[in-house]
Amino acid sequence: MDIKYDVTKFNENKKEEIKDAVSVEEPLEMNLRFKNNSKWHTENLSITMRTPGHDEDLVAGFLFNERIIENIDQLIKIEKKGKKVGDYNIQNQIEATINDIKNIDIGKIKRNFLTNSSCGVCGKTSLDTVEVIKKDKLNLSLPKIKKEIIMKSPELLINEQSEFSKTGGIHASSLINDSGKVIVTREDVGRHNALDKLIGYAHKNRLIDNHSQFIACSGRLNFELVQKALMSNIGVMIGVGAPTSLAIDLAKRFEMTLLGFVKKNSFNIYTNKERIIL
Amino acid sequence: MDIKYDVTKFNENKKEEIKDAVSVEEPLEMNLRFKNNSKWHTENLSITMRTPGHDEDLVAGFLFNERIIENIDQLIKIEKKGKKVGDYNIQNQIEATINDIKNIDIGKIKRNFLTNSSCGVCGKTSLDTVEVIKKDKLNLSLPKIKKEIIMKSPELLINEQSEFSKTGGIHASSLINDSGKVIVTREDVGRHNALDKLIGYAHKNRLIDNHSQFIACSGRLNFELVQKALMSNIGVMIGVGAPTSLAIDLAKRFEMTLLGFVKKNSFNIYTNKERIIL
Repeated sequence: MDIKYDVTKFNENKKEEIKDAVSVEEPLEMNLRFKNNSKWHTENLSITMRTPGHDEDLVAGFLFNERIIENIDQLIKIEKKGKKVGDYNIQNQIEATINDIKNIDIGKIKRNFLTNSSCGVCGKTSLDTVEVIKKDKLNLSLPKIKKEIIMKSPELLINEQSEFSKTGGIHASSLINDSGKVIVTREDVGRHNALDKLIGYAHKNRLIDNHSQFIACSGRLNFELVQKALMSNIGVMIGVGAPTSLAIDLAKRFEMTLLGFVKKNSFNIYTNKERIIL
Repeated sequence: MDIKYDVTKFNENKKEEIKDAVSVEEPLEMNLRFKNNSKWHTENLSITMRTPGHDEDLVAGFLFNERIIENIDQLIKIEKKGKKVGDYNIQNQIEATINDIKNIDIGKIKRNFLTNSSCGVCGKTSLDTVEVIKKDKLNLSLPKIKKEIIMKSPELLINEQSEFSKTGGIHASSLINDSGKVIVTREDVGRHNALDKLIGYAHKNRLIDNHSQFIACSGRLNFELVQKALMSNIGVMIGVGAPTSLAIDLAKRFEMTLLGFVKKNSFNIYTNKERIIL
């Protein structure tokens, strides 16, 4: 599932306003319905950020892969639930009904999964559901970043990575200022961990400066990464890869400038282009 | 942090036995210590798969980014805990002590995070901690796959992706057989979701065949993806990107054949090369 967004594309000194396709990211709340002591129970299992489509397969695979069920015949049915919500008018809740509770350790399931009982994917927009910030609590930084610094960022990221050249299998985040100085870089096999490490270090050492910095990430930009950057009032975030729909929506709502596909000679601006000096 | 593994490298009809660096992936159990009603409490917050190093920054950033703390001064101390375990002889537990509990909603924290009280990162090897399978329960498939089929897989993956060509920002998994026929492909912004969708569909439609199939993934291979494939007794798994250390360790323990960096003319075999016909 993909959707077209307005994008400012910069390539070899040429600026273009285009419509570009972006992969959709939306939360899915999975619920499990089962019989125990001859009564039916429903437990919230998890919320996962997914691309809508084949949601029933996703739940069946998840239940099997986590050994909540041992074979597929334990599934009686899988049903979409809740109101159609958000920009795509889709249901973001799903319920799996299983039989044969004998082999299922409900205590273990409850210990092992997110039990986000107050979530409410139903009836709110997707963003409200997963956001942990409120707009009035933020005070976004307002740097102005030259296009030359933006296009230099992938090289700066790679130069600072002690490990990428060796393994080719690690993500990185850098905090960079408007003259192209790298303040700190952190690496991890998990993108979200690399950014958590960066933010943790920057705050502990009082390195966040509210008007001259941006964050660069080695991979794709999803909802979670944009949220983490917003938490520190970072006004500009760039990715070497593609952003998801929800990453763009979140950046737009909080007036962050979001760039993707940043390369040596080109980049895409998805939101608030006024902070980039073209 | 990286470590050298024995790798069989195949490139342009040449086979080499080399040592290659791989990024380390290990579980980290985060615990939160706080005072409530003048008593100290400790809550297990989450287990994350991370690359060891800067663990204190990771925890500080995580607590801040999830708004468990509102500013970094609420952190009194962060301490590594537990025995040194596993191949790297490192501590995989960490405890953050925070003050100023007034603004912290402990109920919300407990609802929102994994409460895996039975985990025990301490005192066991890392693999035992996070594995949900036992070796004697598996019956791995034993396909023999020709190198030509392996090197064709990235192209097969891309051809089957309805969305990648449009957005450049979506992962895919394919179930492919030993003659190069794609049985099913699923896409998602999350790698683990793409694989859950694939496995869910394959089981619902009884498409898993125990001696002729392998799974190909568009990105990097981590512990979680290998575990999901093992659950369905898949004997050969290949990735277009790099594997993590724990992905290789898990494949080795369960005698799965794991390949990474699969390209048109080359690939790396990390474990059990006897299932690949060179």
